[in-house]
Amino acid sequence: MSEFVARFPVEVYWEDTDAGGIVYHSNYLKYMERARSDLMRKLNVSQAAALTDPNGYLFVAASVTIRYRRAAKLDDRLTVVTRVTALRRASIVFEQNVMRGDELITEGEVRVGCVSRSTMSPAAMPDELYERIRALLDAAAAESES
Amino acid sequence: MSEFVARFPVEVYWEDTDAGGIVYHSNYLKYMERARSDLMRKLNVSQAAALTDPNGYLFVAASVTIRYRRAAKLDDRLTVVTRVTALRRASIVFEQNVMRGDELITEGEVRVGCVSRSTMSPAAMPDELYERIRALLDAAAAESES
Amino acid sequence: MSEFVARFPVEVYWEDTDAGGIVYHSNYLKYMERARSDLMRKLNVSQAAALTDPNGYLFVAASVTIRYRRAAKLDDRLTVVTRVTALRRASIVFEQNVMRGDELITEGEVRVGCVSRSTMSPAAMPDELYERIRALLDAAAAESES
Amino acid sequence: MSEFVARFPVEVYWEDTDAGGIVYHSNYLKYMERARSDLMRKLNVSQAAALTDPNGYLFVAASVTIRYRRAAKLDDRLTVVTRVTALRRASIVFEQNVMRGDELITEGEVRVGCVSRSTMSPAAMPDELYERIRALLDAAAAESES
Repeated sequence: MSEFVARFPVEVYWEDTDAGGIVYHSNYLKYMERARSDLMRKLNVSQAAALTDPNGYLFVAASVTIRYRRAAKLDDRLTVVTRVTALRRASIVFEQNVMRGDELITEGEVRVGCVSRSTMSPAAMPDELYERIRALLDAAAAESES
Repeated sequence: MSEFVARFPVEVYWEDTDAGGIVYHSNYLKYMERARSDLMRKLNVSQAAALTDPNGYLFVAASVTIRYRRAAKLDDRLTVVTRVTALRRASIVFEQNVMRGDELITEGEVRVGCVSRSTMSPAAMPDELYERIRALLDAAAAESES
Repeated sequence: MSEFVARFPVEVYWEDTDAGGIVYHSNYLKYMERARSDLMRKLNVSQAAALTDPNGYLFVAASVTIRYRRAAKLDDRLTVVTRVTALRRASIVFEQNVMRGDELITEGEVRVGCVSRSTMSPAAMPDELYERIRALLDAAAAESES
Repeated sequence: MSEFVARFPVEVYWEDTDAGGIVYHSNYLKYMERARSDLMRKLNVSQAAALTDPNGYLFVAASVTIRYRRAAKLDDRLTVVTRVTALRRASIVFEQNVMRGDELITEGEVRVGCVSRSTMSPAAMPDELYERIRALLDAAAAESES
């Protein structure tokens, strides 16, 4: 397992809550997606550019498994903690936990697949990106051994 | 003013509510948009087809004015009542009221502009569509005079 | 496995789509929730009433597993097909598939837990409701054997 | 007009966009609401606390007028610029413009009313809060004259 960890802050606004007084269950998937997009941005991947590039590629959700442990509420300050648990040429598996301080709110496993923007069919991500992510994971692993 | 009236049902689900126990304010714009899309469908306008047609045109919101009169709640059965108050070659003005039975929940005025899908710049809608909407409005006006 | 099946229609509007041209991944959870709420309504369970009843109970998502098979698009007419795969005093497991005609768009397994509205802690659903759901499942199973 | 100005950053994610490739029109109201909530937080108003306080008060949208000037896109970094154009005991009028750098994306005028949490009926905000907001506006006005 990789020791690479990314943390992304999320604040709970009225729009995220429902009449039960808690964050509506599907909104955690949005929080997790924002964290993955933030990671892509840091890796210099422009998803916006891909939309208009015939040779562009996109990452789309292939599957998600979410366990709702505790409820988050209006004004809560949350953190999405993201790890990469598997990296392949055409897919990435993320473990993403939404935390409130050290309380686990929601745990998620999200598998995303790389697709060609023009055909929306599975495709290998560019070698260069694969290598950059691999290097990020290896560097973090090396750090934790030192 | 046109006597043409379209009615579109909407049910309030958990996803529409917020921690105040009422429908979150921006969701009424979604309800109104669904009603306009339903009207377009009945006029045989395929917005989905326009997305992939280089000569296609789309209707985008240019402005909205919304007054929130009463709060709607989980499980409420609402109706979006839509009238066309102005029809021009490149724009349409809708009056859209969200009702709960005969109670006025939210009143809205929405101006939509026609744009070319390729440039996203203002463009006149096809004459054929303009004539069809005009005919719909005239027919309703004639009915109310008889 | 129960032979009980409920079908709930969903239409894809602009609000459901994203810049990739397809339904944004978290929205399928909303569609599935609407279908469960519709089933609750048919079983005469008022979730809205529970919100203001100190003895009320709510059903909250405990976990979801979703597999995204095909992309749905603007104007698609979908059906959420719901089955109950497990029924216990304090939880229900649903299998919910989102179909476009006979094409499988998204498959989901959603476990919901019953909670006391006042404490938001796990609680057994009322015996009367448990029996009513059990009867619905048994009746359907009996039908398929005849 | 007050010279008080608050700025709140917003980033456009996949969840905010639609199949037309731009931010879906109702999402600007969410951005504006987040900015108002951020301002309330800075004024030490806890909206979350109000939800469970029988003497609590909430601010709800009474009306909105929005003009859509330019389209925002995936990955855009926006700023909600908020001014207070009217302050009364039971209501506040905000002018809120969504900017992308110095480009005006969306302009809005939002009138919010103060309501008693228990009755959801109009009520004057606490004198102490009214005075604090008044002082904020006066201080900014004084600054711009010096």
